[in-house]
Amino acid sequence: MERPHGGNGLSGGDGGEFQSPALERLVRSLSRLPGLGRKSATRVALHLLTGGGAEAHADELTAALGDARRQVRTCSQCGSITEPDPCRICTSERRDRSQLCVVASPVDVLPMEKAGFFRGRYFVLGGLLSPLDGVRAGDLPFERLLDRLQDGPVTELIIALDASVEGETTALYIQRLLSGNPLQLTRLATGIPVGGALAYTDEVTLQRAFQFRRAF
Amino acid sequence: MERPHGGNGLSGGDGGEFQSPALERLVRSLSRLPGLGRKSATRVALHLLTGGGAEAHADELTAALGDARRQVRTCSQCGSITEPDPCRICTSERRDRSQLCVVASPVDVLPMEKAGFFRGRYFVLGGLLSPLDGVRAGDLPFERLLDRLQDGPVTELIIALDASVEGETTALYIQRLLSGNPLQLTRLATGIPVGGALAYTDEVTLQRAFQFRRAF
Repeated sequence: MERPHGGNGLSGGDGGEFQSPALERLVRSLSRLPGLGRKSATRVALHLLTGGGAEAHADELTAALGDARRQVRTCSQCGSITEPDPCRICTSERRDRSQLCVVASPVDVLPMEKAGFFRGRYFVLGGLLSPLDGVRAGDLPFERLLDRLQDGPVTELIIALDASVEGETTALYIQRLLSGNPLQLTRLATGIPVGGALAYTDEVTLQRAFQFRRAF
Repeated sequence: MERPHGGNGLSGGDGGEFQSPALERLVRSLSRLPGLGRKSATRVALHLLTGGGAEAHADELTAALGDARRQVRTCSQCGSITEPDPCRICTSERRDRSQLCVVASPVDVLPMEKAGFFRGRYFVLGGLLSPLDGVRAGDLPFERLLDRLQDGPVTELIIALDASVEGETTALYIQRLLSGNPLQLTRLATGIPVGGALAYTDEVTLQRAFQFRRAF
């Protein structure tokens, strides 16, 4: 096989790039979004630039991103995503100010609010402790969490973090931070998911479900 | 378990929506991009709105999309992605005007140009015949392909389409369209990929590789 004619100016180099520098920049910018590789970024770029409906969708997306950047902010009290600040959950008269639920990310608030059973308020950490990824205690808003406990006042702090190493580490850190504090510290139950089959449950979950078994 | 308080105005309904309508619109617009579901769209949206580097990346992406929309176009001669029209491949003095390579999508031009072995020109169909998806002969630019054959003039038409049912159907259609035409009609070889292990080659490919075996 003949070797590539590197300097012919037809292809954009050794990366299989488009002839268009503007398209190339768009693909590169898109491929730095979480979850998008170069191939999916290329698909998205071509979708926004060519074919039926491209104009309309690109207009809509540009407008939606602009609006969201102007209107969306982080609640200064709880850290969740909101337009008014403080958010409607923080200011609601109908939420129980004695219960505070600690979650890692604004996204974690969604399933809780969708289910609608929790009537307290939230505190979004914005991350989890992860020495390996360089996320240390100083990087997360634990000071603000302590301040927040005064506002209510909070009598129960519910830790609702991922059941991962990082989640466990963060939960333990909060537990130590609050040692000596009279508030009730609770965490989500570990066990078999509702509808989950015993035979397909991993060993660790099974062991935990056994360990935390309840009386009828 | 208590049932959700549907009408409390805290969650955005039964979809687990954000409190922010602007964010909700952005997530919906993103999730209509190819390859993005609601979850990945949410991740992308939060990446563009919150956390370190969000401002810079959102600025860059907005500018890149705007630039690409203004500058990127489809080559009126070959249908590939370009900024100047006709594209640099179509206008190049160094490309062999007697060879024309038919591909389905502008993306297919990239690996060919990256490898650099092909010195002819391209014709992008912009799709493949697919009766199931409602793509019929009238939807693809076969008329323009016939016109293009005069410009060169083209003596060899190389069909480089996917080895799928749609690709085969389209190849057959082009073959019939050109029956009686004196030009040489060729297509890419089917066989074992370079570096491919025989044991892991699917049966159909193996059969084709056998069928099209060459003399040493």
